[in-house]
Amino acid sequence: MTERLILVSNDDGPNAAGIHALIQVAKEFGKVVAVGPNGGQSGKSHSITMDMPLRMKQVAKEDGYEYYTVSGTPVDSIKLALDRVVDRKPDLVLSGINHGSNAAVSVIYSGTMGVALEAALHNIPAIGFSLLNHSADADFTLSKQVARTIIKEALNNAFPSYTALNVNIPDIKPEAFKGIRMARQCMGVWSGEFDARKDTVGRDYFWMTGDFHNREASSDETDEYVLRQNMVAIVPVKPDLTDREALESMKHWKFD
Amino acid sequence: MTERLILVSNDDGPNAAGIHALIQVAKEFGKVVAVGPNGGQSGKSHSITMDMPLRMKQVAKEDGYEYYTVSGTPVDSIKLALDRVVDRKPDLVLSGINHGSNAAVSVIYSGTMGVALEAALHNIPAIGFSLLNHSADADFTLSKQVARTIIKEALNNAFPSYTALNVNIPDIKPEAFKGIRMARQCMGVWSGEFDARKDTVGRDYFWMTGDFHNREASSDETDEYVLRQNMVAIVPVKPDLTDREALESMKHWKFD
Repeated sequence: MTERLILVSNDDGPNAAGIHALIQVAKEFGKVVAVGPNGGQSGKSHSITMDMPLRMKQVAKEDGYEYYTVSGTPVDSIKLALDRVVDRKPDLVLSGINHGSNAAVSVIYSGTMGVALEAALHNIPAIGFSLLNHSADADFTLSKQVARTIIKEALNNAFPSYTALNVNIPDIKPEAFKGIRMARQCMGVWSGEFDARKDTVGRDYFWMTGDFHNREASSDETDEYVLRQNMVAIVPVKPDLTDREALESMKHWKFD
Repeated sequence: MTERLILVSNDDGPNAAGIHALIQVAKEFGKVVAVGPNGGQSGKSHSITMDMPLRMKQVAKEDGYEYYTVSGTPVDSIKLALDRVVDRKPDLVLSGINHGSNAAVSVIYSGTMGVALEAALHNIPAIGFSLLNHSADADFTLSKQVARTIIKEALNNAFPSYTALNVNIPDIKPEAFKGIRMARQCMGVWSGEFDARKDTVGRDYFWMTGDFHNREASSDETDEYVLRQNMVAIVPVKPDLTDREALESMKHWKFD
């Protein structure tokens, strides 16, 4: 039997603790090839580089494990990995472990989930992991345990076609952990508030900031709710944005 | 009655013919404020700038019309517009007219549709327009006629909540045009093929290229099908990626 091939990526670059935690777990399940951006690429969503060529560099190579960095976005990295690095379709794509939440509508802005959704377009089972802690020295102990459990279950079941799993992990100690639950994406909006400042010559500039406004705070079905219960939330996500209800409700529109 | 306020953006920058075609049509319906990237930002998807501040510059001002450029992505631009430019929630957000298709899964990579989906998160009626012609001197005659028809109908009906319309326009003469039809997003994949080259000192670099592989070529319900009939395709899209079928099919997964 051919050894399992696992492709790993992230959006925080090769120095992030999160991807090394994920690689460590991934190695328990097969050969690991990591291909990711050569620096921080948070908030890059599904963006691709069309106006510049990409560079790629091998930064680690040992038995059953290689790591390549790419001078582009997370989605550039997985595209380049699939075309130029691996010699067959991987059995699994893992992304993360992101330093910070990708729950609720943050999935839309997330480079970590951009990777997983790109894999879903190729019908490769894909899981993106995010820990609700932004700091560089976040503790990935619980995250590794969770990743191991979910990867095992994903390999033991038929993975849904053209789908990726968005896994968010609460920032708690393992002893406070209450389990893993499926959920749907919580809807709401990051209000785009900007901090206006003056530079040293008096010209305006704007720093993005803002808060998440949960418009489903009363629902117990969302990933945000599940996370508040000290549980891990898994949301299956797909790259089909069609709003079928709207298609139905717009049937009477006339364009003549 | 307060004059209608229309916010316009794009991902091709302020020199693109497409946004000026759209502004021209938008002016027929109300006061127009354009806020968009200061240069080409194709393929930027829903990405936001988190590691740099943004600059904004007014580049046009006349009665009922202003244009501001932003040193960031399309989604940065609309976020900054909503927070710092307009003094109330716009009645409509328009994006484009993009030079090139955003049909099928291209919606995922599209900065034009990033803008429209960001507006949808704020529950502002939003329409992204794209013409199936990449060239800078594409003919927007039919596009303007189509935009006018669709904007009129959007204002005459209840706009679906938290939804944006992805409008793609075939690259044909007005006399070949067969009408406007609702459709769903065609599924498939842009195979990420890369052209490998050597630079002047012999080091590798990679240019992204690739083709769209339509996995629903036999369906007559998709935007790709509609476009092939010389018709305009409208796909209502929403920023909720939850795969409800997968949620159902994964009910037996055990994480204990």
